[in-house]
Amino acid sequence: MAQAAFPEPDVALAERLFGAFRAETAGRLGVVRASYGEGEEAAHRLVRESAVALGLEVAEDAARNLYLSLPGADRTARSLFMGSHLDSVPEGGNYDGAAGVLAGIAVLAGFKRAGHVPPFDLSVAAFRAEEAAWFDIAYGGSHAAFGRLPLAALDVRRTDTGCPLAEHMRDAGCDVAAVRAGTPFLDPARLRSYIELHIEQGPVLEAEGFAVGIVSGIRGCLRFRRAGCLGAYAHSGAEPRRSRRDAVAATVALVQRLNDEWERLEGTGEDLAFTVGELTTDPAQHGPSKVAGETRFVLDFRSLEDSTMRHMAAFAERHAAELAKRYRVQFALGEPSYSAPARLDATLRQGLTLAAEDLGVPTMVLASGAGHDAVVFATAGVPSAMLFIRNQHGSHNPHEAMAMEDFAAATRILAHHLARETAA
Amino acid sequence: MAQAAFPEPDVALAERLFGAFRAETAGRLGVVRASYGEGEEAAHRLVRESAVALGLEVAEDAARNLYLSLPGADRTARSLFMGSHLDSVPEGGNYDGAAGVLAGIAVLAGFKRAGHVPPFDLSVAAFRAEEAAWFDIAYGGSHAAFGRLPLAALDVRRTDTGCPLAEHMRDAGCDVAAVRAGTPFLDPARLRSYIELHIEQGPVLEAEGFAVGIVSGIRGCLRFRRAGCLGAYAHSGAEPRRSRRDAVAATVALVQRLNDEWERLEGTGEDLAFTVGELTTDPAQHGPSKVAGETRFVLDFRSLEDSTMRHMAAFAERHAAELAKRYRVQFALGEPSYSAPARLDATLRQGLTLAAEDLGVPTMVLASGAGHDAVVFATAGVPSAMLFIRNQHGSHNPHEAMAMEDFAAATRILAHHLARETAA
Repeated sequence: MAQAAFPEPDVALAERLFGAFRAETAGRLGVVRASYGEGEEAAHRLVRESAVALGLEVAEDAARNLYLSLPGADRTARSLFMGSHLDSVPEGGNYDGAAGVLAGIAVLAGFKRAGHVPPFDLSVAAFRAEEAAWFDIAYGGSHAAFGRLPLAALDVRRTDTGCPLAEHMRDAGCDVAAVRAGTPFLDPARLRSYIELHIEQGPVLEAEGFAVGIVSGIRGCLRFRRAGCLGAYAHSGAEPRRSRRDAVAATVALVQRLNDEWERLEGTGEDLAFTVGELTTDPAQHGPSKVAGETRFVLDFRSLEDSTMRHMAAFAERHAAELAKRYRVQFALGEPSYSAPARLDATLRQGLTLAAEDLGVPTMVLASGAGHDAVVFATAGVPSAMLFIRNQHGSHNPHEAMAMEDFAAATRILAHHLARETAA
Repeated sequence: MAQAAFPEPDVALAERLFGAFRAETAGRLGVVRASYGEGEEAAHRLVRESAVALGLEVAEDAARNLYLSLPGADRTARSLFMGSHLDSVPEGGNYDGAAGVLAGIAVLAGFKRAGHVPPFDLSVAAFRAEEAAWFDIAYGGSHAAFGRLPLAALDVRRTDTGCPLAEHMRDAGCDVAAVRAGTPFLDPARLRSYIELHIEQGPVLEAEGFAVGIVSGIRGCLRFRRAGCLGAYAHSGAEPRRSRRDAVAATVALVQRLNDEWERLEGTGEDLAFTVGELTTDPAQHGPSKVAGETRFVLDFRSLEDSTMRHMAAFAERHAAELAKRYRVQFALGEPSYSAPARLDATLRQGLTLAAEDLGVPTMVLASGAGHDAVVFATAGVPSAMLFIRNQHGSHNPHEAMAMEDFAAATRILAHHLARETAA
């Protein structure tokens, strides 16, 4: 690996913290760091202790997101943020989220020890409640940091406890009134940029043989969460094809057309992922010798391009209407939920690519299919970037894996880039 | 309606019995005549009392199927049977099964009163346990009548009580030892023919505007009851199409191909019904943002032709293998269950058609998609035929409907045909 002159990040410190995280938040198989739960709190405590020991500035906002800063020469200049989240899904992996926070600490530790004083503050944010598994809301912590947590979110109950977010926040010592009032801690106008390092949640880097990826953008998601088809139950042997109102046949035809359209668009180079992750006839009414009178399913469209998602939604509605006539059924796709794609900053991406080249680390460009806290920064208008680290065995499961040398390679790219950005 | 000279069936008697059936076996919404249960027993008692009052001969076999006979001039000649079953599905309709038995009584009542002495015995069978809803076995009563009830059937537990068939039979006063020994009551060599009148369990006659149908044959059924597809769960946004192991996409592709093949075969005039009545992702593991790693489904093929069902099964296996490669999944269709199609007798069909023409009742020819006791007779080598009566609102539900004039038309066809067959 080529050597470039910059304060080396303290990867060993990060590795120790990964070990402490795993030890203190172990579940049955993986780790359990519930949003505003015990495991998340333990991880925050470990990060805070480490930051204090390094002599970094420590702050918390009303939602108890944690910020560690290496003060810059000009404290009034716009600051540069790194970060990610410290919660995990139930029985998840140790790296999802944590890698971005610990990479940031490793970089600041290296800078601090080298006596590097940047021209502006360098900060690491450790967000809470990023995983929708607990409250069925995404980016709860980072939204709150910008004073943008929707009021309704405070009433959402945690999957495991059944208690609302507001109650969990209060128990965790948050200033719920300030969160509710939308008092921002982060002001986009005061932020220079945000860089999030994260494990890739898909298999692309592993399959393509790259340790590190530069993220082109974060896919938005347009989802029909409660789509359904209503036909009529009938005898499978006695009901002719021409008079059937077969909900399975109609649904299968719709999904097949959507899959065909996805394949077509992919051939033209459009970015899209289409998934029917849930599809069921009604267990209370279906039967082996009955034409199915009902299906329920989810249509999940993700793309870097808003227009592609809109196209697929319109395609689905149009073909559902056509197939409803042909199959004598009714489709009700319902109101879709929508999150906009996040554009990542071209200049930042270029900077990270150059840093990787300097270090002799081959990288590839890929889209993020999963959402990240970076979406909240990008949406707020803060130039944002992401580095992905390859991950074996997928994410959101106990078998999630990351080689420490891959983490080190990505963290060095981050350190080298920041060293250049903050050179005197 | 044209008049032909034959003893008119006593449709009024049948109508009174339908009324008594409904009154004595009413459930919450429909009727409940469980196989070897209270409601079935009540119906058998009413039929027996009626037969005794008419002066018909009454007999029961070891399984307590009931037989009413008008003795013929030659008691040693092969006898002609009519009949059907008296049990119903839970909360079913009043006519499914009962219509065939009561039509038979109406015909015998007319013959008896007219002093008509046929050259051979004319009998009506009232079978038990035809509905698979109770013991998950079909044609239990008629199988037992021929001494062909599988031994394993005696251990099958009734859905509602959890008690085995043998216990229910014993409680109902059956000679379980004789049933177990396979002692036949009916000997195919002693039977001239079997004619079953039944409501149609599909919508064809109603849709086409015919009161009565002549059944061409009874479809067999080749069913993959526990088919499944195994892929791999993955993040819906992060897993590229080319590396997905998407069980839903693969299953949808398979079902679509089977539906297309059905449509193609129908275009060439082949008889087939294909149904996926159950299709589910795994509720314990699926999710709106997860590629589905598993599906379970049923493939149900029905046809008058064994070769058509075999073709579809082979088509399914072949395309499942091809799609498994394409989608990187595994299909396991499992061992299919199989019931052979029953061929109905051409001469009998012709006789019934002529009788209908004589009476000016327009009929159409249609296949039976559902199974009937006639399958057991046909399989035993007894020339068999079926008449269908149109039925509104489908079968196996409380809303099943039959107009009494349609029942009368079918019963007159039966009487006219039998009068001709038994003319001196």
